[in-house]
Amino acid sequence: MRNVLAEETGNETMRNISAAVQEGAAAFLNREYTFLTGFVIIVALVITIFLDWQTAVAFIAGALASGAAGYLGMMVAVRANVRTAAAAQRSLNDGLRVAFRSGSIMGMAVVSFSILGLTILYLAFDGNIAYITGFGFGASSIALFARVGGGIYTKAADVGADLVGKVEQGIPEDDPRNPAVIADNVGDNVGDVAGMGADLFESYSGSIVAAATLGAVLSAGGQSPLAFIGLPFLVAAVGIVSALVGTFMVKTEENATQEDLLNTLRRAVYTASGLVLVLSAIMVPLAGLDFRFWVIILVGLIAGNGIAYFTEYYTSYSEKPTQSIARTAETGSATLIIQGLAVGMLSTVAPVLIVAFAILLSFWLGAAATEGNLTGGLYAVALAGVGMLSTLGVTLATDAYGPVADNAGGIAEMADLPDYVRERTDALDSLGNTTAATGKGFAIGSAVLTALALMAAYTEAARVNNPEFSLNLLDPVMLPGILIGAVLPYLFAALTMTAVGKAAYEIVLEVRRQFREIPGLMEGTGRPDYRTCVGISTQSALREMILPGAMAVIAPLLVGFILGAEALAGMLVGATVSGFLLAVMMANAGGAWDNAKKWIETGQMGGKGSDAHKAAVVGDTVGDPFKDTSGPSLNILIKLMSIVSLVFASAFGSGLL
Amino acid sequence: MRNVLAEETGNETMRNISAAVQEGAAAFLNREYTFLTGFVIIVALVITIFLDWQTAVAFIAGALASGAAGYLGMMVAVRANVRTAAAAQRSLNDGLRVAFRSGSIMGMAVVSFSILGLTILYLAFDGNIAYITGFGFGASSIALFARVGGGIYTKAADVGADLVGKVEQGIPEDDPRNPAVIADNVGDNVGDVAGMGADLFESYSGSIVAAATLGAVLSAGGQSPLAFIGLPFLVAAVGIVSALVGTFMVKTEENATQEDLLNTLRRAVYTASGLVLVLSAIMVPLAGLDFRFWVIILVGLIAGNGIAYFTEYYTSYSEKPTQSIARTAETGSATLIIQGLAVGMLSTVAPVLIVAFAILLSFWLGAAATEGNLTGGLYAVALAGVGMLSTLGVTLATDAYGPVADNAGGIAEMADLPDYVRERTDALDSLGNTTAATGKGFAIGSAVLTALALMAAYTEAARVNNPEFSLNLLDPVMLPGILIGAVLPYLFAALTMTAVGKAAYEIVLEVRRQFREIPGLMEGTGRPDYRTCVGISTQSALREMILPGAMAVIAPLLVGFILGAEALAGMLVGATVSGFLLAVMMANAGGAWDNAKKWIETGQMGGKGSDAHKAAVVGDTVGDPFKDTSGPSLNILIKLMSIVSLVFASAFGSGLL
Repeated sequence: MRNVLAEETGNETMRNISAAVQEGAAAFLNREYTFLTGFVIIVALVITIFLDWQTAVAFIAGALASGAAGYLGMMVAVRANVRTAAAAQRSLNDGLRVAFRSGSIMGMAVVSFSILGLTILYLAFDGNIAYITGFGFGASSIALFARVGGGIYTKAADVGADLVGKVEQGIPEDDPRNPAVIADNVGDNVGDVAGMGADLFESYSGSIVAAATLGAVLSAGGQSPLAFIGLPFLVAAVGIVSALVGTFMVKTEENATQEDLLNTLRRAVYTASGLVLVLSAIMVPLAGLDFRFWVIILVGLIAGNGIAYFTEYYTSYSEKPTQSIARTAETGSATLIIQGLAVGMLSTVAPVLIVAFAILLSFWLGAAATEGNLTGGLYAVALAGVGMLSTLGVTLATDAYGPVADNAGGIAEMADLPDYVRERTDALDSLGNTTAATGKGFAIGSAVLTALALMAAYTEAARVNNPEFSLNLLDPVMLPGILIGAVLPYLFAALTMTAVGKAAYEIVLEVRRQFREIPGLMEGTGRPDYRTCVGISTQSALREMILPGAMAVIAPLLVGFILGAEALAGMLVGATVSGFLLAVMMANAGGAWDNAKKWIETGQMGGKGSDAHKAAVVGDTVGDPFKDTSGPSLNILIKLMSIVSLVFASAFGSGLL
Repeated sequence: MRNVLAEETGNETMRNISAAVQEGAAAFLNREYTFLTGFVIIVALVITIFLDWQTAVAFIAGALASGAAGYLGMMVAVRANVRTAAAAQRSLNDGLRVAFRSGSIMGMAVVSFSILGLTILYLAFDGNIAYITGFGFGASSIALFARVGGGIYTKAADVGADLVGKVEQGIPEDDPRNPAVIADNVGDNVGDVAGMGADLFESYSGSIVAAATLGAVLSAGGQSPLAFIGLPFLVAAVGIVSALVGTFMVKTEENATQEDLLNTLRRAVYTASGLVLVLSAIMVPLAGLDFRFWVIILVGLIAGNGIAYFTEYYTSYSEKPTQSIARTAETGSATLIIQGLAVGMLSTVAPVLIVAFAILLSFWLGAAATEGNLTGGLYAVALAGVGMLSTLGVTLATDAYGPVADNAGGIAEMADLPDYVRERTDALDSLGNTTAATGKGFAIGSAVLTALALMAAYTEAARVNNPEFSLNLLDPVMLPGILIGAVLPYLFAALTMTAVGKAAYEIVLEVRRQFREIPGLMEGTGRPDYRTCVGISTQSALREMILPGAMAVIAPLLVGFILGAEALAGMLVGATVSGFLLAVMMANAGGAWDNAKKWIETGQMGGKGSDAHKAAVVGDTVGDPFKDTSGPSLNILIKLMSIVSLVFASAFGSGLL
C-alpha cells in the first residue's frame, strides 16, 4: 500500500478529478456504512435474544472485518487510478504494476482479514465452532448490501450518464462536462472493487466456516476433529503465502499484446495455484489426515479454473459464441437479444457439470477417506470450496485491478493526456474486462460450493437439534420448500433489475436539469455539479437495496419458522440451484453482449456507427444490469440464505403446520 | 364436427386460400407423422426388449390416440377458418360459434380419446397399471415433437414472413403477395392447435396414469385400491360431461365488448367447473372414498384457475405490469426488454406459491384421509392434477379457438371482405390472444402437477424395484442429479430459440428469392409460390426439433443408468422446478411484450409508428420464441422426462458409480 501511495499523482487536473472520485467514493461508503451500522446493531440484538451473545460478537466481527477490507481496498483503488494514469505516461509496465498492486491490496486484505478474524474468534471462544458461524453471517450481511447497493449504484450512474450525455447531448464517454461522469467513475469502484471484494470475502469465510463446522463433528480412522478443523485454515494460510508470491510475478514488456498481458496474469494465478498444491501436499500428512484430502483440494482448484475457462470462452469475442451474437446484429436488435439469451442459457451447462462432478468426486473421496462417513463426504465438498478459493489473494487482485485501469483511462481522457497514454490505459482496461468476466464465473462457482457446504453444515446442526430430522425428497414440505427457494432468485433478480431502472431515471432527470439550468455547461465554461449526481446515485442505490436485501434475510427465517427445518433445507437447495443457473446465465449473456459490441467496434459487421453496432448497443444496455447488478447479487443471495439458516439452525422446529 | 363442416364456405377466393392452408397443414402433419412413425416403432422395439410387449402396445396406443386427436382437431381447425370468416359476414355471434365449436372438437377429442384409450388398456391388461404407463409415454412422445416442431414452425414462418414482407418490402400483414403468408397461417394451427392439444393430451393422460399408479398400491381405512384407481377415471368422465354442457353456453350479442366476449367464455368454464364439483361430490362417496378427496379435486380446480388468473394479470394490457413495460418504451428497446424480463421473472412468484400451496394442502388432506399414509398424500397431489384438468374439454376449446379466429381474420383480409367482417374477426382474434395467455398458464401449471405426480409414481415404482431406495437430499448423487436436471431446461430453451432463428433465416432467403425472381409479384400480377415456403418451414422445423427432442428422451435414461435411480429422482425434481420457472417467465414475458405493443397500438405512448412503438416491436419479436416455442416446449420436457423415468423405473439400478 505504501508502495502504491508513494507513486506520482500527475498534474493538477488529474489530481482534481481523482479527488472528486475519492470524495464520491467516500461519501457512498460513509452513507452505506452508516446504514449498515444500524442494521448490524439490530441483527446483533436479535441474535443475542434468540441465540447467544457470542454469536452476536462473531457477527459484529465478521461485519467489521468485511467492511474494513472493502473500505481499505476501495480507498486505495480510488487513489491508485490517478497514479496508474501517471505511471502509464512512463510505460505500460509501470501502469500495469501500479494498477495491479492496488488490486492486490484488496485481494490480500480480504484473505488476511478473514483468516485473522476467524482465528482470533476460534481462540477466544475455545474452539466452539457454532459461535464462529456468526462471523460468516456478518460478512454476508455486508456483502449483500455492498454487492446489491454497489451493483445498483454502478449501473444507475453508468446508464444515467450515457443516456443524457452520449445519446441526448452527443458528448463522448468520460467527458468532464457530463455531470454524472464522476458518479460513473465512483460506480466502477463501488461495484467492482468493494462489491466484488465483499462477495468473495463472504465465500472465503463461508467455505472455511462450513468446513470447520463439519470437521468439528468428524473423527475417523485415527484422524482427529482438530485436524479436520485445522485443515481449511492451513490451506487458506498457505494460499495467502502463495498468492503473495504470485502477485510479484506481474510485469510486462512495452509492446505487449492483449495475449501477453493476459498471460502475465495467468502466470501469477497458476504459480500461486502450483505453490498451494505443493505446500498442501506437505500440510495434509503433517495434520495427520488421509492424503485423499489433498486430491480434494486439487479438485476444487481445477473446478474453479475450469469454470473461469468456460466463462471466458462464452464471453470473449475471439470465440464463436460471442461472434454468433454479433452476427445476428445484422437482422436487428431483437435477434441479437434472442441469441444473447440463448448463449447465456447454453453457457450454464459447463459450470453446472463441473460443479456436479466436483461434488460427486470430492464427496466420494471424502467419504472413502473417513471410513464411509457421510459427514466426511460433506466435509470434502466444503474443503473443495476452500481449495477453489485458496488463491483468492491473487485471483481477486486480477479482478479488482480492472476498475482502477478503467478509472485511469477516464482520468487520461478528462485530463487530456497524450494519445499514447490513453492507448496504454485502454490496453489495461481491456485486459480488465476479460479478467472481470472470469472473475464473475469464479465468484459464482465459489458461491455455489460455499452455499452447498453451508447448507450441509446447516443440516448437521439441524440434526443435532432434532434427531428425527430427515431430508426425504418426498416429504410433503420438501417440494414446496424447493419450489419457494427456486423462485426467490427470480424475485430477487426482478427487484434488482427494476431498481437499476428507477435509480437511473432519477440521475437522468438531474443531469438533464443541469444541462438545462447551468449556463455554459455544454461550452465547457460552466462547472457541472458532480456532487449532486453522486448524492442521488448514493441515495437511490441505498434505498433500492433495502427491499431485496431484507428479503434475503427474512425468507429463510419465515420458511424455517413456518414450514420447519426440513422445508428450509429444501428451500436452500432450490434457491442455490436456481440462483446458480440464473446468475451464470445473466452474467455470461451480459458479458457476451458487451463483447459482441466491442467486436463490432473493432470493425466487424460494418464497425462503429453501423446499424449492426446500434443493435449491439441495445444488447449491451440490456446486459448491463444482467452482468453487474442482478447476476452477481444472486451469489450473495444464495450464500446469505444458507448462513442465516446455519446460524439460526437451533431455533427452528418442525414448523407451525 | 358435422355441424361445423355444414357451415357455408364463402366465396371462391376464400375457399382457395383455405384450401392452401389445409394443404400446408396436411403436408406438415403428414411429414411429421411419417417421422414420428419411425420414432414410435424404434422406441416400441426398445421397450419390448428392455421391458415387455404390453408396455410397448400401450405406448403405440398412446401415440396413436394423441396423434389422432391432433390430426382431427387440426383438420377441423383449418376448415373452420373459412367458415368462421363466412359466418362473421352474417353476425359476430355466428362467427364466435363456428370458431368456438371447432375449438371444442379439439378439446373433446383430447379428453375422450385419452379416457377411451386408458380404459380399453386397463381392461385389456386386467388392471395392470404398470403397462398402462406406456400410454402416457406414447402421448408424451407425440406431444414433444408436436409442441417443439410446431413451435419452431409457427415462429419461423411468422418471423420469416414479417421480416421480408413487412420490414423489407413494406407490405401489410396477411398480404396475399407474401409468399410466406400461407406458411404463417398454417403455423398458427400447427403450433397453437396441434401443439397445445398434444401438450394437454399428455398432461391429461399423465395425471390419470400417475394417480392410478399410486392408487394401485394404496389401501387404507376400508378404501380399496380399485376405488383409488377408479376415482381419477370418474372425475375425468364427469369432467367430459360438464365440459360438453359448458361448450353449449357460448354465445354473444352483436355489439359485444371484449369484456362481454371474455365473460361468455368464462361462463362456459365456470359452469363446467361447478358441474364437475357437484358430480364429483356424488362420485367420491359412491366410490367408497373419504370425502376429503373431493376437497382435493376442489384444490386442483382452484389452483388451475388461480394460475390462469395471474397469467392474465401479468400479460393483459389493462393491468399495471404490461403497462409498465409499455412505458419503458419511451427510453428505447433496451429498457423495454429489461422491464419485460423483470415482469416475466416477477410473474413466476404467484404460480409457484399456488402450486406449492396446492401440493402442501392436497398432500396433507390425502395423507389424513388414508390414515397418515405418505402414498395417500402423493396420490392426492396426482388427484389435484386430475381435478385441475377435469374441465379440459372446454378450457382447451377456449384456447384452440384462437388460431381459427386468427386465420379467419387473415382470410377476410386476403379475400378483401368488407371492413365490418374484419372488425368482427379482429374482435374474435383479440379474445383469442387473451385466452391463449391464460391457456399457457394453465398448460404449465398442469404440466408441473403432472410431472410431480409422475415423479411420485416413479419413486413408488423404484421403491418396489429396490427396497433400499431412499431419497435423502444429502445423498452424494442427489445434488449433482438436481443440478443436472435444473440445467436441462436452460439447454432445451437455448436449443429451441436458436432453432427458430435458423429456420426463420431459411424462409427469409426463400421469400427474398421469390420477390427477386418471380416477375410481377409485388404488383400482384405474379403468383407467389406458397408451397415452397410451406415445404421449407416443414422441413426445417422437423430437422430442428430432433436434437432437443432426443435430449428429452435420452437424458433421463443416461442419468438413470449411469448415476442410478436416486440421482434420477433428483434430476426430475431439478428439471421440473427449473423448467416451471423458466417456462412461466418466458411465456409471460413474451405475452406481456406482445400486449405492450398492442396497448401502444391503441394510441398510448404516441401510438403506431412512434419511436415507442418501434421499441415495442423489438420486445414483441424477442417474445415470439419465448411464448410460442421455448416456453411451451418446456412443459413437455418436464413431463416427458418424468414419464420416461416411470416407464423404465424397473430397469435402473444403483448406477455405475
